[in-house]
Amino acid sequence: MAGVADGLVQSLEDIAARLRIESIRSTTAAGSGHPTSAASAADLVAATFFAAMRLDPEHPRSPAGDRFVLSKGHAAPLIYAVWAELGVVKREELGLLRRLESDLEGHPTPRLPFIDVATGSLGQGLSVGVGLALGARKLGSDARVFVLLGDGETAEGSVWEAAQMAGHEHLANLVALVDVNRLGQSGPTMLEHDLRAYQRRFAAFGWRAVTIDGHDLRQIVPAVRRARLDRGAPTAIIARTIKGQGIEGIADQEGWHGKPLPPDAAGRAIAALEVRLHHMPPPPVRKPARRSLPRLPAQPTPPVPAYAEVATREAYGDALVRLGAADPRVLVLDGDVKNSTYTERFRDAHPDRFIEAYIAEQNMVGTAAGLAAQGFVPFAASFACFLTRAADQLRMAAISRCNIKLCGSHAGVSIGEDGPSQMGLEDLALFRSLPESVVLYPADGVAAEACVQLAGVHRGLVYIRTTRMKTPPLYAADEAFAVGGLKVLRASASDALTIVAAGITLHEALAAHDELVGHGLPVRVIDCYSVKPIATEALLEAARATGHRMLVVEDHYAEGGLGEAVRAAVAENDVRVRHLAVREIPHSGPPRTLLERYGIGRGAIVTAARALADAEVGAGTRA
Amino acid sequence: MAGVADGLVQSLEDIAARLRIESIRSTTAAGSGHPTSAASAADLVAATFFAAMRLDPEHPRSPAGDRFVLSKGHAAPLIYAVWAELGVVKREELGLLRRLESDLEGHPTPRLPFIDVATGSLGQGLSVGVGLALGARKLGSDARVFVLLGDGETAEGSVWEAAQMAGHEHLANLVALVDVNRLGQSGPTMLEHDLRAYQRRFAAFGWRAVTIDGHDLRQIVPAVRRARLDRGAPTAIIARTIKGQGIEGIADQEGWHGKPLPPDAAGRAIAALEVRLHHMPPPPVRKPARRSLPRLPAQPTPPVPAYAEVATREAYGDALVRLGAADPRVLVLDGDVKNSTYTERFRDAHPDRFIEAYIAEQNMVGTAAGLAAQGFVPFAASFACFLTRAADQLRMAAISRCNIKLCGSHAGVSIGEDGPSQMGLEDLALFRSLPESVVLYPADGVAAEACVQLAGVHRGLVYIRTTRMKTPPLYAADEAFAVGGLKVLRASASDALTIVAAGITLHEALAAHDELVGHGLPVRVIDCYSVKPIATEALLEAARATGHRMLVVEDHYAEGGLGEAVRAAVAENDVRVRHLAVREIPHSGPPRTLLERYGIGRGAIVTAARALADAEVGAGTRA
Repeated sequence: MAGVADGLVQSLEDIAARLRIESIRSTTAAGSGHPTSAASAADLVAATFFAAMRLDPEHPRSPAGDRFVLSKGHAAPLIYAVWAELGVVKREELGLLRRLESDLEGHPTPRLPFIDVATGSLGQGLSVGVGLALGARKLGSDARVFVLLGDGETAEGSVWEAAQMAGHEHLANLVALVDVNRLGQSGPTMLEHDLRAYQRRFAAFGWRAVTIDGHDLRQIVPAVRRARLDRGAPTAIIARTIKGQGIEGIADQEGWHGKPLPPDAAGRAIAALEVRLHHMPPPPVRKPARRSLPRLPAQPTPPVPAYAEVATREAYGDALVRLGAADPRVLVLDGDVKNSTYTERFRDAHPDRFIEAYIAEQNMVGTAAGLAAQGFVPFAASFACFLTRAADQLRMAAISRCNIKLCGSHAGVSIGEDGPSQMGLEDLALFRSLPESVVLYPADGVAAEACVQLAGVHRGLVYIRTTRMKTPPLYAADEAFAVGGLKVLRASASDALTIVAAGITLHEALAAHDELVGHGLPVRVIDCYSVKPIATEALLEAARATGHRMLVVEDHYAEGGLGEAVRAAVAENDVRVRHLAVREIPHSGPPRTLLERYGIGRGAIVTAARALADAEVGAGTRA
Repeated sequence: MAGVADGLVQSLEDIAARLRIESIRSTTAAGSGHPTSAASAADLVAATFFAAMRLDPEHPRSPAGDRFVLSKGHAAPLIYAVWAELGVVKREELGLLRRLESDLEGHPTPRLPFIDVATGSLGQGLSVGVGLALGARKLGSDARVFVLLGDGETAEGSVWEAAQMAGHEHLANLVALVDVNRLGQSGPTMLEHDLRAYQRRFAAFGWRAVTIDGHDLRQIVPAVRRARLDRGAPTAIIARTIKGQGIEGIADQEGWHGKPLPPDAAGRAIAALEVRLHHMPPPPVRKPARRSLPRLPAQPTPPVPAYAEVATREAYGDALVRLGAADPRVLVLDGDVKNSTYTERFRDAHPDRFIEAYIAEQNMVGTAAGLAAQGFVPFAASFACFLTRAADQLRMAAISRCNIKLCGSHAGVSIGEDGPSQMGLEDLALFRSLPESVVLYPADGVAAEACVQLAGVHRGLVYIRTTRMKTPPLYAADEAFAVGGLKVLRASASDALTIVAAGITLHEALAAHDELVGHGLPVRVIDCYSVKPIATEALLEAARATGHRMLVVEDHYAEGGLGEAVRAAVAENDVRVRHLAVREIPHSGPPRTLLERYGIGRGAIVTAARALADAEVGAGTRA
């Protein structure tokens, strides 16, 4: 092992001591936080930032520069303190930790310019690192990505999804720093200080794995520097550390997770750390060779072609091919269902921009978040039901305001014989409940292509729900769609009520319309393809024109989907909204049979519409 | 390796051939399904059921008998065929695969007596196996649990969560059969036929891992028999197989996943398999030594004590201690937050019935499902937001009608300084959208204890949402609560509207009530502690008595929670429902400040109530 100059060691020791001091001081001032989790990683962070990373503090999100992901987000004060060392955070702001008036939140969020994605739900950072590293490679950047993990969070399976992907992709530009401090929140971790066990696991997943003393800078510095070298595989640095290292009486003790030191103890701990300072200047920041890489600009979207009868999932695949040809930022990920979601067409057309994510949806979403943080526009697809696997990653992506696009195919009972495990019946509830999300649900090929284009230009998380069955064409190629729009497909001056539907049930509603008209009951039919945001004003206009009667029909459970969205939209306007949805655990069976069996087919719509037309609306309020 | 008698081999070869024949025949008849995925595992299944397992076909769910979990649920026809070999499924019913009139669904569900939990979302079966194995051990049963995994699904992190738990718990009664057929749905798996890589991974997670040829019964039989021996660790049998084995022209070919053979090809394949039959009788079924184990009967619930000011999360912990003392079926799991969820009190009181699940929520839920299938009543807890990690496992548990209980603590912005990553703001949407779920949200200690007791006696999936902050007492110890109930806490003959709240916002609503009464505006206040099912009739009664005006306030995002539940309940009765909820990504800050900042505190309630009282309800319908 090459020697490390005494001056550098002392300089890094000083930085690490200041990181500990600020972590203690800021959490004590805040009255909450995790100083001991910061203390165990202070030496690792000091060495990584000041002896290994190449970054431009003024452009922390440049693809040319190295990135650092704090997967153990509860050590946030540590990362705020290191960016204070770099001059990006004002030192006096560290005292505002966790206050409403400061963006130094309890766990990091991208409200801060040097945070790529929010962390704090454990086990997600390595997937983001995979995305950042894959993105850097695709951009031709030689930047490296460092991810600091806690030992406790390696119990999350998502860590091993990321590890396998990094190994499989030979991501030599990815470095995992595992802070093995032995103690979780409520007790010792499973493996405690068994560093070899961690090493075996990472090695088994295709990593170069080394063990070090995480408080010995003469071991840390060579390890993080060597990790920059391209050895054809990602590097895991398994570091033996002590929780609360440097804080006498608290280090290595249980019962100190997530607890600030009382003011007197904090004062003593800070004084003890200050006494040991060498008062050396920090090493110079190591800038990246190039300041920036060529930008990937947004491109005009291509024209939408005409579509015959087609499944929206298939149109989704075709639309991606065209959007990808126009926009080099577009990447496509898929969870080993590319022949069902039709993303295989993108793979065939743009193989260098397709990422096979295998059956690991959590890592697929985390990787997409990392790719977005490098400027790409990733579209990730699986069956709608299997995206629930990544619900927590999606939650964090929403908090991070990630510019990622999800597609869930095989929505609803209309998939038929495969049965309930394969039916997406809660995906609208999942995606609607993500803050700032956009939820689109096209009903034909043109609408599907338009939704893909809308997703491509919208900045933020967009979900597109597609259908397994083929559906007949509804729209001409030049039809205009918008986030927050709807389409009135059937209307007359004497409509008795409005049927609101989307996707597969829109076609059922149109069939019901024809039958109802035959019965002398004209009804309005709306394609509510933008489930969120929803076209409130247009819905109200339709309600007012149709006796304040609405019938919503959706291939989704009754909770959290289109029906509840429509009710929320019209809630202040005394509209009677009846709702047809799936209200029991469905069974395997033929698609058309299931639509009627679960009360969302044309027959059920006709029956419900006739009953609703007879209902006296406003009766309750006049009683 | 001990020799295997020729007669046994031929007999098992015959069974395996019949399993293949039935898988081909039934999927071709159904017009969909996965015959090639069944064919790769036919030899493994034949040997496991007829040369290793001890089971009583008439009592497949007896804790005394071995269990088999088909984690690769798409191989369902195989498992139906083996239960036909055992005489439990009528052979003629195999031809009804995937039809509405048969419970032989596309993927297995517990509508069938020999299926413990639904599978078909990959990567979940091993966690269920962990639960079954832990449960068997706790019952003193020497039964073994066999889990058949596909190779593709080992890409799911949840598999490694289960593997680490099994290794950590030394579950020598658990056997994983990994069917390494090299091909996923849409292409080769990451590891293809690299059996050593699988072996290294399982070994690194604490397993005894062996590799075999998965089509050589002289290797399979000794492997599955030895796996029954207690070697102090779980056993993984990594079997090299061929997808579509035994089907000429299709075996080992891409493009055959999830596709039935055309009728002519099926006929040829079946004829070729039939020609090779030895026509040996099947080996006798090996019954468990004991027919059954002592039952764990339900017990009367203990009395609820009085509570002073307390956080509902703390009352949850105390309630579990008391319920556990009364009911030996109660087990408690926690994801390394037992000092925050207060399940540590149960651990201290009943250490043999507490399971530390570490930071691996997917496996925690899957394990709970397996424990429930052994007759236990598992309660699993984490922060509400982190339960989203297990959304897919919860989805499958709901489809399985598992008798499991979840508790999510730290709900909402009222947790304060930790920030958005730790705030459960979509958990009600998640749990409401699970079919047949019960969702409870107590507001004080007595209510929390009552909810735990209700969960204990209700058969099915129950979610309890608890709060970090302390809340003052509302109820006397003898107050009666019910699934589907509510409490009217404030009422007068002249109430202008009804405020519906639950949990933390109920206390805000009560404070608002006092202020509104001071302003001369009496309002009704309802504790809607049963979010699902919701007390529709009682809500309507309140609405009718208070001018058809309702104000719902909740510490949750606007989508999918209490507000949408209330609107759904009163939708047919022209009630004006205004809704206060969190409508942006929250920031770190003090709890009380955040409640007002995000518009769900007492000040916001007062403002909204006054505006709603002034609104002319029913105006829209009269326009």
